[in-house]
Amino acid sequence: MAIGRESVEKLLKFKTTKWKTSITRIESNKISTRGYPLEDLIGTLSFPEMIYLLITGNLPSKKESRMLEAILVSFCDHGVTPPSTQVARLMASTGSPLNNCVSGGILSFGEHHAGALENCMKLLQEGVKEYTEPLDSPKDVKKIAEVLIDKFVQNNRKIPGFGHRYHNEDPRAPKLIEIAQKYGFCGIHTQLALAIQEIISDIKGIKMNVDGANAGILSDMAFDWQLGAGIFMIGRLPGLISHIYEEKTREPPFRKFFGIDEIYYNGVDERFLSKRFRSPENR
Amino acid sequence: MAIGRESVEKLLKFKTTKWKTSITRIESNKISTRGYPLEDLIGTLSFPEMIYLLITGNLPSKKESRMLEAILVSFCDHGVTPPSTQVARLMASTGSPLNNCVSGGILSFGEHHAGALENCMKLLQEGVKEYTEPLDSPKDVKKIAEVLIDKFVQNNRKIPGFGHRYHNEDPRAPKLIEIAQKYGFCGIHTQLALAIQEIISDIKGIKMNVDGANAGILSDMAFDWQLGAGIFMIGRLPGLISHIYEEKTREPPFRKFFGIDEIYYNGVDERFLSKRFRSPENR
Amino acid sequence: MAIGRESVEKLLKFKTTKWKTSITRIESNKISTRGYPLEDLIGTLSFPEMIYLLITGNLPSKKESRMLEAILVSFCDHGVTPPSTQVARLMASTGSPLNNCVSGGILSFGEHHAGALENCMKLLQEGVKEYTEPLDSPKDVKKIAEVLIDKFVQNNRKIPGFGHRYHNEDPRAPKLIEIAQKYGFCGIHTQLALAIQEIISDIKGIKMNVDGANAGILSDMAFDWQLGAGIFMIGRLPGLISHIYEEKTREPPFRKFFGIDEIYYNGVDERFLSKRFRSPENR
Amino acid sequence: MAIGRESVEKLLKFKTTKWKTSITRIESNKISTRGYPLEDLIGTLSFPEMIYLLITGNLPSKKESRMLEAILVSFCDHGVTPPSTQVARLMASTGSPLNNCVSGGILSFGEHHAGALENCMKLLQEGVKEYTEPLDSPKDVKKIAEVLIDKFVQNNRKIPGFGHRYHNEDPRAPKLIEIAQKYGFCGIHTQLALAIQEIISDIKGIKMNVDGANAGILSDMAFDWQLGAGIFMIGRLPGLISHIYEEKTREPPFRKFFGIDEIYYNGVDERFLSKRFRSPENR
Repeated sequence: MAIGRESVEKLLKFKTTKWKTSITRIESNKISTRGYPLEDLIGTLSFPEMIYLLITGNLPSKKESRMLEAILVSFCDHGVTPPSTQVARLMASTGSPLNNCVSGGILSFGEHHAGALENCMKLLQEGVKEYTEPLDSPKDVKKIAEVLIDKFVQNNRKIPGFGHRYHNEDPRAPKLIEIAQKYGFCGIHTQLALAIQEIISDIKGIKMNVDGANAGILSDMAFDWQLGAGIFMIGRLPGLISHIYEEKTREPPFRKFFGIDEIYYNGVDERFLSKRFRSPENR
Repeated sequence: MAIGRESVEKLLKFKTTKWKTSITRIESNKISTRGYPLEDLIGTLSFPEMIYLLITGNLPSKKESRMLEAILVSFCDHGVTPPSTQVARLMASTGSPLNNCVSGGILSFGEHHAGALENCMKLLQEGVKEYTEPLDSPKDVKKIAEVLIDKFVQNNRKIPGFGHRYHNEDPRAPKLIEIAQKYGFCGIHTQLALAIQEIISDIKGIKMNVDGANAGILSDMAFDWQLGAGIFMIGRLPGLISHIYEEKTREPPFRKFFGIDEIYYNGVDERFLSKRFRSPENR
Repeated sequence: MAIGRESVEKLLKFKTTKWKTSITRIESNKISTRGYPLEDLIGTLSFPEMIYLLITGNLPSKKESRMLEAILVSFCDHGVTPPSTQVARLMASTGSPLNNCVSGGILSFGEHHAGALENCMKLLQEGVKEYTEPLDSPKDVKKIAEVLIDKFVQNNRKIPGFGHRYHNEDPRAPKLIEIAQKYGFCGIHTQLALAIQEIISDIKGIKMNVDGANAGILSDMAFDWQLGAGIFMIGRLPGLISHIYEEKTREPPFRKFFGIDEIYYNGVDERFLSKRFRSPENR
Repeated sequence: MAIGRESVEKLLKFKTTKWKTSITRIESNKISTRGYPLEDLIGTLSFPEMIYLLITGNLPSKKESRMLEAILVSFCDHGVTPPSTQVARLMASTGSPLNNCVSGGILSFGEHHAGALENCMKLLQEGVKEYTEPLDSPKDVKKIAEVLIDKFVQNNRKIPGFGHRYHNEDPRAPKLIEIAQKYGFCGIHTQLALAIQEIISDIKGIKMNVDGANAGILSDMAFDWQLGAGIFMIGRLPGLISHIYEEKTREPPFRKFFGIDEIYYNGVDERFLSKRFRSPENR
């Protein structure tokens, strides 16, 4: 059977087009997101439902959207203590535009800051995947937890999602677990996170933080760990914007965050200062 | 009456502390956002309610939160056509981390792209403020509209919030106006936007776009125009993340978005290419 | 006469190609920058000569390249006092990659920080341009200076390029002027900057800073003021990178730049903390 | 012996100060970089000498500064083909300020783009370090090369610093090697890079690129591989700025880099478009 002209054209177009997307189709006067006319979604979908639809391609159930809503609210702000928020405010103080300050904050999410959610999701998802025995009893989850903790202890590394430099007991974590139980997202990954907590809480007094709780729940909602940082950012952006706006509207511009007497010059001592520069020719 | 020791200490602390905030208070095991324990907000507030609380300091009414929800959904995505989304995907293709790609997108909101919401809010808010006559009839709003349009026409400038390079009739705008009427946010600013549309639609066939509609509505919700870009970013972030994720998971890494034959070298012609470099000494 | 086939093809290509550039032509195994084979420039041109060639399209004279060299060196670093450097180090401390930290620093160049060079170049270039009388005597330059200062005083604005929050007499400025005199770049723009200094130094004791001196000199070297921020960035980048490297290799990661006791919560007082959240339904 | 009061104060200050630096000391009217008064360096040091001093803390020899100069020139530009340059120009087209466009370019240096220098430096430095036998004959270097290539082949990975998607023979590499030989920087690391080239050139016809050559040379100049990305950025920044300036001054603002017909919607087909949204309650 011959291939129709239309199919060939479609195929050719596919090969030569530079942009392929399944997210939103744009035609004159028509915008369809994940197959739905956008004007049908405005005023009908909640914001978390829209976020879920955009990212996964599917509409969430009511339980999924409410769980995601609680997660996003839990990430919203942590005052001026995070370096990302400090960066955003320092930048706001120089008169930089809002999008620069926001980017400064987002670019500050480094290895030691705001990576815990994603790393903990990866840990839990790989932990569950690698463990091949049937996982139908609490005992099994405890076994995986022991193996995982052992690995981190042996490598002398901190387990992401546990412990917080300002809180012994992060008040967000138990509330999130409570909601996950209510909506049915306290599955194998969340149970694994809880099992880790039980062991390290006994030994070291360290508890699960907001990232550890959400890592378990998001994994039980079937989110790829590679989306962890993205979900955290969606949650934190409103907080960043509030701080930038507060700095811009309530503080004097270009204020000094540090006094000149708070700087210590190590190694730039008198000996150095007395040396005068000799031009390279004479060296 | 003597000033108490505590007051003095508070005053001194105020003077020497470098960070002042009214957004979120952090104490050991306690997080209070705008005065509310955060664990009370998780699972209770919707995400738009939390956004409203963070930014304004107050809880919204149900109508306010539903209106804000519709606005955020309307901004979520416009496919791969915006330069900001193209930038984010180009960066994703180089293997840059998610937060870099997101920042690239956000930093692309320049004078000609994504500034319309804020500029239109400013225009409407200043238009309403400057006009001193009582504004109780549709006729008055029409007058302001005429004055504003005249200014732009005289300066040969485009009115922000009107017209779209892909849509003659942006399907998001009428839907947003409909919702604003339902929730009671079709106030003086939105009416002014509609009056502008009426005039320029008659003359040039140009209609209000998503930014024009939201600029009116957000102004009638009492949002400072300086928050316009922030609200747009909160809405658009999920779309950006979806595109970055799609590029990273569905396309080959480091793909060529352009062929070498799509480059034209103007002024780098044969004459130039034949000239050999003479060292500066011989020039 | 008929147009040749080749010309038509060239024209068509011009119309359909998306990228046009006069900077560097890329062909298989050939790289030509501004018409010169790149391998001829490597090891022959100094770095400032290459910068000049890239930006202007022409090779500089020896005097031009030495002047540019002095300017770039003068911008290299100002310790940890600039907010941009503080931002870069805060970000380095979170474990963010080098390019993120560099971008954080560069994005911090806002209205109140690092904009002085560009703004002063604009001021001097427009000042010289607007003033139509023949400018052949020191008296004329003084007249423009008076008019310019008057404008700023009337608008209660700071003149960019003059005064420094850490130095009454910026040691870089007189050295740069001295070099400019040696190489012949103390033209009308630099003289205008010096005339401004003379007046405001007498009245307010304010002297020219590094930006004021370089603004005059770069203008006399015929650089467009729109390139000011770019030249500053090229000069400052090595300093930023040194600080990021120092933070990453000499300081403990994720250190606290601020103690929790350095935060003051204004308006987040007891009254607020005692209020418990009521769900939106009950408001 | 008692510790003097001054020492104690110095110690205390060290403990409480938040900023420590050995790079530049700022005092009123005094700026000392690496111990030298900055005004002594302006007009005396070349820009690469200043870069070397800032980064390493020491003044370079004439050979070191000339080698670094050649390396920086070699990195300056590669036309509009790199994604980082495309990103910078797309952003310039939206009217974003120069520092945003520069940051967009810098943030595009991802895993697959511009990481080769640093990765190749790491590879060569670790290769030389791990290999414990005395390394005094070309035969030894060849052995390390074989071991390294084997590792990459077994893991099915590309060796960083070799091969280029536009050049079979990168014209910059042999020129840089030639200069390194002249100045005496063709040491063990560069020889290792050349040995790798010899083997893979024979087998696969793949040659060293600009990054491979510079990785060897910079390693032989004793630069830490962690500084690789920084040195590349210093070299590339002038190119990025030239392209942003060209886009802003020669092209129409907000131009379309892609036509709407260059987008292919995979999976957003008719079936999807015909489905109308049902509110979540009815699902």
